[in-house]
Amino acid sequence: MFTHYSKYLDAAVNEIAKLPGIGKRTALRLALHIHKLEEEEARLLVEAILNVKTKIIKCSVCHNISDDEVCEICRQPKRNGKTICVVQDIRDLIAIENTAQYAGLYHVLGGIISPMDGVGPNQLTLPELFKRVDEEDVDEVILALPATVEGDTTNFYIYKNIKGRVSKITTLARGVGIGEELEYADEVTLGRSLHTRTDFEIQYKQR
Amino acid sequence: MFTHYSKYLDAAVNEIAKLPGIGKRTALRLALHIHKLEEEEARLLVEAILNVKTKIIKCSVCHNISDDEVCEICRQPKRNGKTICVVQDIRDLIAIENTAQYAGLYHVLGGIISPMDGVGPNQLTLPELFKRVDEEDVDEVILALPATVEGDTTNFYIYKNIKGRVSKITTLARGVGIGEELEYADEVTLGRSLHTRTDFEIQYKQR
Repeated sequence: MFTHYSKYLDAAVNEIAKLPGIGKRTALRLALHIHKLEEEEARLLVEAILNVKTKIIKCSVCHNISDDEVCEICRQPKRNGKTICVVQDIRDLIAIENTAQYAGLYHVLGGIISPMDGVGPNQLTLPELFKRVDEEDVDEVILALPATVEGDTTNFYIYKNIKGRVSKITTLARGVGIGEELEYADEVTLGRSLHTRTDFEIQYKQR
Repeated sequence: MFTHYSKYLDAAVNEIAKLPGIGKRTALRLALHIHKLEEEEARLLVEAILNVKTKIIKCSVCHNISDDEVCEICRQPKRNGKTICVVQDIRDLIAIENTAQYAGLYHVLGGIISPMDGVGPNQLTLPELFKRVDEEDVDEVILALPATVEGDTTNFYIYKNIKGRVSKITTLARGVGIGEELEYADEVTLGRSLHTRTDFEIQYKQR
């Protein structure tokens, strides 16, 4: 999709196509769109990109993104500081926040243990999590990591390290999705949902 | 999809989601990706965007995008300057160039006549086209505009204005696409392809 008519256009297509999920064709469309933007619109876009890169920092407590040293979630006095929900990244944190079903704090790992990708416990914020469990008054750690081999590995690693140091360690329920037909659920999920079946009244109350 | 945890992130999501075809969810993914870029990668992206906005100009002859006063296509001595292909925008020019089937010059209108959108002939580079037809040694004008009501309107407008001033005015063939099943072609296209049927030897030679 290179045009060869403008080295500036080609450079923009090249850079934009490096973004995840953006192909060369889309990048060309976006570059031409940007070319036609008003001066002020282009300025706002560039400024927003620069700010997102340079001004956002990590919360010193939970490692969520933040404009300040301690993030908004950690600062909210009405949140339950005795529960920590462990997530792999900020997108999962946002997904959980969007459910409006959780009022505790978080701990963002910055990934999961994946020897294949060279990610070990020390590349993640695991030492910081263990420190929080020891130093803060924590009742429950909720492991909300993906249901994959790497997620399970990370779950076990955390479990082994904090077992006995916190009274309750839980994970997200795995089961048939709400609105999903049983016959289309995969066998492992269906089997697990039987194995971890929930008291009817609790399930009903939660929905 | 607003996070409310970082005004910089929210601003970036907001700006990125203004780009065509980018929703809030994708914008959030891109913003978080940009946040994690290396300093140098972010600098290249921002620079590319700024350059595409500020350094690219329009070719003074054909209105193609260009880094110089006259674009690369108009400057190529081996191209046939007696044929002008009229396109609505640069993306259509690129699409035609990618076929490697055309060696003439172009004229980029910058849109098509669309009274509904308030686009009249003078918002486009139509006066410049007519001037080129009069002043340059042009044999043929190829109308390569979209096969829509607006495209047809623009075709007729150009035709009326240059008729008698250039020896040949042609349009792109409309017909059943190569590799397309006849039964799935729409009736208008199929009817038109019968009406404008092509000499077998010419068709065969072109493919």
